[in-house]
Amino acid sequence: MAILVVNGPNLNRLGARDPSQYGTLTLEAIHERLRARAAGRAEIRTFQSNHEGALIDFLQAEGPGSEGVILNPGAFTHSSYALHDAVADLPVPVIEVHLSNIHAREEWRRRSVIAPAAKGAIAGLGWVSYLAALEALLALRETR
Amino acid sequence: MAILVVNGPNLNRLGARDPSQYGTLTLEAIHERLRARAAGRAEIRTFQSNHEGALIDFLQAEGPGSEGVILNPGAFTHSSYALHDAVADLPVPVIEVHLSNIHAREEWRRRSVIAPAAKGAIAGLGWVSYLAALEALLALRETR
Amino acid sequence: MAILVVNGPNLNRLGARDPSQYGTLTLEAIHERLRARAAGRAEIRTFQSNHEGALIDFLQAEGPGSEGVILNPGAFTHSSYALHDAVADLPVPVIEVHLSNIHAREEWRRRSVIAPAAKGAIAGLGWVSYLAALEALLALRETR
Amino acid sequence: MAILVVNGPNLNRLGARDPSQYGTLTLEAIHERLRARAAGRAEIRTFQSNHEGALIDFLQAEGPGSEGVILNPGAFTHSSYALHDAVADLPVPVIEVHLSNIHAREEWRRRSVIAPAAKGAIAGLGWVSYLAALEALLALRETR
Amino acid sequence: MAILVVNGPNLNRLGARDPSQYGTLTLEAIHERLRARAAGRAEIRTFQSNHEGALIDFLQAEGPGSEGVILNPGAFTHSSYALHDAVADLPVPVIEVHLSNIHAREEWRRRSVIAPAAKGAIAGLGWVSYLAALEALLALRETR
Amino acid sequence: MAILVVNGPNLNRLGARDPSQYGTLTLEAIHERLRARAAGRAEIRTFQSNHEGALIDFLQAEGPGSEGVILNPGAFTHSSYALHDAVADLPVPVIEVHLSNIHAREEWRRRSVIAPAAKGAIAGLGWVSYLAALEALLALRETR
Amino acid sequence: MAILVVNGPNLNRLGARDPSQYGTLTLEAIHERLRARAAGRAEIRTFQSNHEGALIDFLQAEGPGSEGVILNPGAFTHSSYALHDAVADLPVPVIEVHLSNIHAREEWRRRSVIAPAAKGAIAGLGWVSYLAALEALLALRETR
Amino acid sequence: MAILVVNGPNLNRLGARDPSQYGTLTLEAIHERLRARAAGRAEIRTFQSNHEGALIDFLQAEGPGSEGVILNPGAFTHSSYALHDAVADLPVPVIEVHLSNIHAREEWRRRSVIAPAAKGAIAGLGWVSYLAALEALLALRETR
Amino acid sequence: MAILVVNGPNLNRLGARDPSQYGTLTLEAIHERLRARAAGRAEIRTFQSNHEGALIDFLQAEGPGSEGVILNPGAFTHSSYALHDAVADLPVPVIEVHLSNIHAREEWRRRSVIAPAAKGAIAGLGWVSYLAALEALLALRETR
Amino acid sequence: MAILVVNGPNLNRLGARDPSQYGTLTLEAIHERLRARAAGRAEIRTFQSNHEGALIDFLQAEGPGSEGVILNPGAFTHSSYALHDAVADLPVPVIEVHLSNIHAREEWRRRSVIAPAAKGAIAGLGWVSYLAALEALLALRETR
Amino acid sequence: MAILVVNGPNLNRLGARDPSQYGTLTLEAIHERLRARAAGRAEIRTFQSNHEGALIDFLQAEGPGSEGVILNPGAFTHSSYALHDAVADLPVPVIEVHLSNIHAREEWRRRSVIAPAAKGAIAGLGWVSYLAALEALLALRETR
Amino acid sequence: MAILVVNGPNLNRLGARDPSQYGTLTLEAIHERLRARAAGRAEIRTFQSNHEGALIDFLQAEGPGSEGVILNPGAFTHSSYALHDAVADLPVPVIEVHLSNIHAREEWRRRSVIAPAAKGAIAGLGWVSYLAALEALLALRETR
Repeated sequence: MAILVVNGPNLNRLGARDPSQYGTLTLEAIHERLRARAAGRAEIRTFQSNHEGALIDFLQAEGPGSEGVILNPGAFTHSSYALHDAVADLPVPVIEVHLSNIHAREEWRRRSVIAPAAKGAIAGLGWVSYLAALEALLALRETR
Repeated sequence: MAILVVNGPNLNRLGARDPSQYGTLTLEAIHERLRARAAGRAEIRTFQSNHEGALIDFLQAEGPGSEGVILNPGAFTHSSYALHDAVADLPVPVIEVHLSNIHAREEWRRRSVIAPAAKGAIAGLGWVSYLAALEALLALRETR
Repeated sequence: MAILVVNGPNLNRLGARDPSQYGTLTLEAIHERLRARAAGRAEIRTFQSNHEGALIDFLQAEGPGSEGVILNPGAFTHSSYALHDAVADLPVPVIEVHLSNIHAREEWRRRSVIAPAAKGAIAGLGWVSYLAALEALLALRETR
Repeated sequence: MAILVVNGPNLNRLGARDPSQYGTLTLEAIHERLRARAAGRAEIRTFQSNHEGALIDFLQAEGPGSEGVILNPGAFTHSSYALHDAVADLPVPVIEVHLSNIHAREEWRRRSVIAPAAKGAIAGLGWVSYLAALEALLALRETR
Repeated sequence: MAILVVNGPNLNRLGARDPSQYGTLTLEAIHERLRARAAGRAEIRTFQSNHEGALIDFLQAEGPGSEGVILNPGAFTHSSYALHDAVADLPVPVIEVHLSNIHAREEWRRRSVIAPAAKGAIAGLGWVSYLAALEALLALRETR
Repeated sequence: MAILVVNGPNLNRLGARDPSQYGTLTLEAIHERLRARAAGRAEIRTFQSNHEGALIDFLQAEGPGSEGVILNPGAFTHSSYALHDAVADLPVPVIEVHLSNIHAREEWRRRSVIAPAAKGAIAGLGWVSYLAALEALLALRETR
Repeated sequence: MAILVVNGPNLNRLGARDPSQYGTLTLEAIHERLRARAAGRAEIRTFQSNHEGALIDFLQAEGPGSEGVILNPGAFTHSSYALHDAVADLPVPVIEVHLSNIHAREEWRRRSVIAPAAKGAIAGLGWVSYLAALEALLALRETR
Repeated sequence: MAILVVNGPNLNRLGARDPSQYGTLTLEAIHERLRARAAGRAEIRTFQSNHEGALIDFLQAEGPGSEGVILNPGAFTHSSYALHDAVADLPVPVIEVHLSNIHAREEWRRRSVIAPAAKGAIAGLGWVSYLAALEALLALRETR
Repeated sequence: MAILVVNGPNLNRLGARDPSQYGTLTLEAIHERLRARAAGRAEIRTFQSNHEGALIDFLQAEGPGSEGVILNPGAFTHSSYALHDAVADLPVPVIEVHLSNIHAREEWRRRSVIAPAAKGAIAGLGWVSYLAALEALLALRETR
Repeated sequence: MAILVVNGPNLNRLGARDPSQYGTLTLEAIHERLRARAAGRAEIRTFQSNHEGALIDFLQAEGPGSEGVILNPGAFTHSSYALHDAVADLPVPVIEVHLSNIHAREEWRRRSVIAPAAKGAIAGLGWVSYLAALEALLALRETR
Repeated sequence: MAILVVNGPNLNRLGARDPSQYGTLTLEAIHERLRARAAGRAEIRTFQSNHEGALIDFLQAEGPGSEGVILNPGAFTHSSYALHDAVADLPVPVIEVHLSNIHAREEWRRRSVIAPAAKGAIAGLGWVSYLAALEALLALRETR
Repeated sequence: MAILVVNGPNLNRLGARDPSQYGTLTLEAIHERLRARAAGRAEIRTFQSNHEGALIDFLQAEGPGSEGVILNPGAFTHSSYALHDAVADLPVPVIEVHLSNIHAREEWRRRSVIAPAAKGAIAGLGWVSYLAALEALLALRETR
């Protein structure tokens, strides 16, 4: 069973997009580092879309058969109740991740409407947020 | 240099305290697992107090000479601007951790007044929140 | 002229999704019951999508030529001003329906941004919400 | 067992009262149409009062022995926590109805303090709101 | 046609009730002064009740045939949407009056939910608020 | 002089009404226990109504000649400014009581609009809330 | 001693300005009616300015020597704390008046920041608001 | 088993501190009266501290072995989520008490962040608040 | 007929005042560019004052005879309901302009109390905001 | 380099959709007028979609190589943080436009979540809002 | 270079105006004490106006050439964004002063919209607030 | 009698802590300057703690016998109602001071919960805030 890494709007622009907030790594480079870290322990499957509906379609289709989900909802974090419901419907653990420390930015970035439906949330560590989520999912596997 | 693990009020009650939210591990058991995980990679130093002032004293005295801090402020998360200022004053990365998913509980637990001063935050993964913070601090070491 | 039954995100998961809130019927089973109830009185045409844009496209294309619309916007109920505008633009009656009693759930589920543009709203009766909407559209036909 | 139709303050003025919002039917005419619709399927018993206490007295006395309640609380919708508690105390389904689309009127009309205690709510369809509630109660009978 | 003077809860206690806010005149004494002032110009009919429903019943029964209403809703001012609707339904001018300056008291006394449905409002002048309302109704008669 | 025990809407339903919140004692049983406790120390007079106006009428008529009032306003707690004013007008101590811990329930139950006019408030102790209020009134008698 | 009639911004435009809200009388015509009504009972002195400072200067200079003030602050009603302070400083009664029923208009028109410092307020009666204020000031004279 | 009486910040100043709000009894005098009242029925153990952490330490150490706790959190009532958590963790009943009627004072004194975790709350009765809590704990003993 | 360009408080300081927000052009330089752009198409008349009353006087005196108004209310944008009323009273189109993007600055700069009374609003384009308003007024001329 | 004209949901319905707010021109007619106005000065490229994701895809693909963007986000204006982020990521000026005066409509239409990321915003001038934005982009070209 | 002492609306009434809040000294007496205190250290220039525009004119004209400003904005403190901008534009330190402790009065007096643009603020010390501001400006001179 | 200088959490870090906000002086250096300034006029006694309880203990023990208190509560300013009560209990003047202009920083720093209990407050002048408070206390001495 794979671990899904699902990314929301504008995250395909990583590397070019405001490096002071999001770092200089491209999304593909982050995915590469995750695959290296997971090597021999889990398969990594990735997805990105700027379409809320496409993210829900993907989670509905691939989520139930996966081991867990690392989800960076991008700006949908703050408005998408539909993603909230899709996450709440999944039988596997979902960890919400953010590159930047959303608690230290604009007021509207400080609240996630999705996090209440997730297992947990990690923010502010740059690409290491993804890595920490990966280690957490693997550790949760052992504690089941 | 050591990694500090600092715990706020009522966390000395872990194991006995509401296991449906906080799990069945004692705080010492969590510390033990962290030491095992960090073995050969970092020294772990731990501290717990129910006194806001004692936590600030400890962070002022031990924080600057450490490699980083894993901080579970307990219920001070939601009211202690003094801890916010103490964290903001530290020259090393501080990661705020929570055992439970504070985003899915009472309204007042959903906002951290400390997180804006931290490097990042991890919540909802039980004792694995600490483990993920440890892995993150070690990974941040490499990326400096 | 047909009566449209339009369903928003995650409603394709009915039957499997949280039965304590949404019941055990699949969406297709609800549609079947509507067709049986409407037999000889009206044609039923159904649509479901997780894509907000697809729902708007469908309402723009099929709504004006229909006799009325039964719309369950799912979680878009609480955020989609675009659906509000699409509904406001339709020349036929639109009845917003919900399976669960949204007034008795999380705070954010209690307000519909779409309802002000609809003819009316029905909530909390399970699949019977759809049936009541169907009977209402047919009764409204007689009272015109 | 009868179905109760309970109406709150100023609804005895229907027909004369602001027809653009409430239509031209009198309350008695609506009751007549309900009796015609229910003929052979259920008995209809009606009650109206401008007194909050009288409505609670009636619900306490007649509600438990009925099959269900169609309740239009009028303006008590927005302030009567006492009616909320009386409804919550009933062992039969209560459906809140409104003639006008309360979601499209003054801000204070948009929130019902009673609906969280009801089975469901129907608004905006004129007298058809009552009809839809009647059909819903009958359909719920079958699905028990 | 008479001018109605309608008083809400606790106003039967005037004279005894907190004289620093409400003065030392009894309600009957105020009514007497109004009758003296109106002598030869209008008939004064008075009503007081602690029951919201009784006030609505009275307004429905006597309001339409009157020349106008002077209404002191007492504490119902701040919560009774049912009185709002009853006032909105009347075809004659209603002037809301208050003995004390409600704008200078507790926060909750500063907003009237009834005033939006009234012709106008007068507050803060003690029993003179009633007198000013009487003069206003008589002056409005001339300007029709 | 008697001690009045005044109960608001739906409290006549105690015993049958949601025992997890309100316990299994009927209102009469609570009154009986109060009479037993007060035996030889004070007379107990009781009143219950679902009518806000009737509660105010009773407080106006019987309150001034009593030794004190134990008042459970039921759901009027959260909306009845008229009861607030009636309580503020009484020359004897009024203690507001609640069976359930209103501070741990729905948001709207957490604020009393009546308590600012009362001598004090007791909540959360089941029928013992009444007993504690009785003991308090008797103790206040001694301290005058 | 004179009664002052003080008018704020844009009231020099009465007659031409939105007659559906403000009527067709010019400000001078209202003043004329006031003088006619007051004839033999009081002298009327009038002032209008679009300048907040000029209104304060006038109230400071002429207010203390007058018998009372009829003040229509226009749109300063909703923002001028400086006028609040000037009114609070006057030793004579000030009655705030409004032509339109500000309680039934835009949200921001519903709150007066000046009224807490005034003796009372009258709104919604067109030019009769001024007349009622005049009668009130004269009646207050008698009750002193 | 003892009943604990725990007092928060500034309560050591009772007697001297603002007697209009808090009365003229010293804390020790209140404790004395409680011991007299409890004589033969329960042992009374008392504690006071201005340190939030010391109060938590005491509750953790002494609470579990006690029969119940009478807790006056002083100004920590309004901000100490850490005390909330400590109270929620106790297996014995905790009754929050206040000398003054906190519902009738500054806005911020009207909400307790601790009460949702307590068994119940008593306010406004001066030292009698403690007495009523004592009687309540003893009565609860009988009803277990 | 002329186009009026009306500027509120502190705009006489343009050029010197915070160039990072307001640019380096003086107000006179902006006026000059507008005259050049309008040459042969419209006459430009300009006015600036730090006095709210003077701005209202000017709009009342010159507005009705003009073709339209370009209004930069400066900081009055956020508080002057009197300017709102003056603008609402004008029979010609008024376009509110801002040099800086008020939507991206302090919270209080994000809401205009004047814009609801204007024809439209333009912000964020520096002196080009004025130019765009000029072109818009000329284009509106053609579309009448 | 072209100027992009990007339109959000329901704007394909212009001409038919509520002409009192949006005018009688179709979107294509507006585009035609822009092309005529820009002739010889800039190329105009247009896009419309009801899909939030499609708008982001288009802005990411075509925005960086354009001279600037005229963006009417339709109802996404009030909820799409994802569009905010896409706009913030563009290296060319983006001007937000609205046909109607959003400041004078429903409360939720008065705030744009996108405008803080744009260069500026123009609202209320009908199709002239687009024209003014075009002139502004061309003028900005000269001032670079 | 002089130190400016600038006073807003109603401060010309000091001495007569509510002495319990503002003391018994006239404004001139305060100015006199300041001159005495500053003798040999700085020249004092004073200004008072009830006109917001006049205060701005004065600050623009005299502020840049002064050594610093002691500004008591009176009631403009709470609403004048225009004064905020004028203060922000000055190149010399401005200290906002208040005679009364604005933090302990009406809610609206507790927030200053001007203070964010000032160097600092002093409140509650009566005329000593001015003296403390004078000493502060002189001390700041030394620390430059 | 001495003047107390009491400093809250993290102020022992002055000099090292964020110099852009707090300056480069250590707390001891500020104390030294105060002693120099007060020489011959008053004795200075200083105290600093990160413990809220220790600050209250100190104020209770030393405050009543002092001449006045200069209190910088640090981050306790924004949350410590217990310090508010301790200050309110003192019979000598307390002046709250802040180094930085708290009105120009994060929203939560703009409100002091302690200031309503203090004599006055001074903010934004760096170490000069302390000096101004010292001069104020000495001046108040003279005016008693």
